Amino acid sequence: MIDIVHRVGIRAPVSAVYAALSTVEGVAAWWTRNASGSSEPGGTIALDFLLPSGERIGGMKMEVLKLDPDREVRWRFREGPDEWIDTEAVFSLSEDDGYTIVNFGHLNWREAVEFTGHCSTKWATFLLSLKELVETGKGRPSPDDVRIGDWH
Amino acid sequence: MIDIVHRVGIRAPVSAVYAALSTVEGVAAWWTRNASGSSEPGGTIALDFLLPSGERIGGMKMEVLKLDPDREVRWRFREGPDEWIDTEAVFSLSEDDGYTIVNFGHLNWREAVEFTGHCSTKWATFLLSLKELVETGKGRPSPDDVRIGDWH
Repeated sequence: MIDIVHRVGIRAPVSAVYAALSTVEGVAAWWTRNASGSSEPGGTIALDFLLPSGERIGGMKMEVLKLDPDREVRWRFREGPDEWIDTEAVFSLSEDDGYTIVNFGHLNWREAVEFTGHCSTKWATFLLSLKELVETGKGRPSPDDVRIGDWH
Repeated sequence: MIDIVHRVGIRAPVSAVYAALSTVEGVAAWWTRNASGSSEPGGTIALDFLLPSGERIGGMKMEVLKLDPDREVRWRFREGPDEWIDTEAVFSLSEDDGYTIVNFGHLNWREAVEFTGHCSTKWATFLLSLKELVETGKGRPSPDDVRIGDWH
């Protein structure tokens, strides 16, 4: 099994970071504006990714596995790119000297393929979008996300 | 063994991307301005990372293991953070429809620790600095790199 890992430090209270991860409105403000569904444990959040032109380029559905206030958010991907099915994303939160530390994992990829590298880089840009959102009030959710190459 | 992987697509000829990876001047324009040494195979490149204030926060020395023009650059880290010793960075280049595709790996970490996540996110920002450098002529090498948290 292969994991993507990232770590960012956000200059904000852990409660603000948790709110951006544990609600549909929060996710829509840093990952993709086209987010809908239920963010309660057991609920499903649907995400769609569009080009600025409005063309849909992909999406996924994820089950909310765990919400541990101010500590952890965990999702399992149920629909989406084949490589993502049954993988999990986990955000572990802690506080350190004025920062909220986010240790992120996109866990249990069956194998490392070229798409894994793309998703890893893309996750970094979305985690920095989360940081920007919580620190400044404005993130860079799709379709305004950072373009990293031919695969968007 | 744990690997960090990333993938970016750069709108430029592969020769321009290769030049930025295979020379000290290139590395200094996207990774850290404080780069020196020999970029020939078998040579050693020394990198230092400073804060904008000039304070040194770290560095490493890497051996150039492989230079395969327009195809691959591979380094092995010989000095630096303990977790980096004997790990390798590899940049595999290919061309696709007007893009140079960079498949990057920072390979052979002994274990996944919190620092792995930090380095993964940081690598993403430096690969996007490489993309910016080659596409626009201006990268974001240290000390002007993107700050991602308390660990810089």
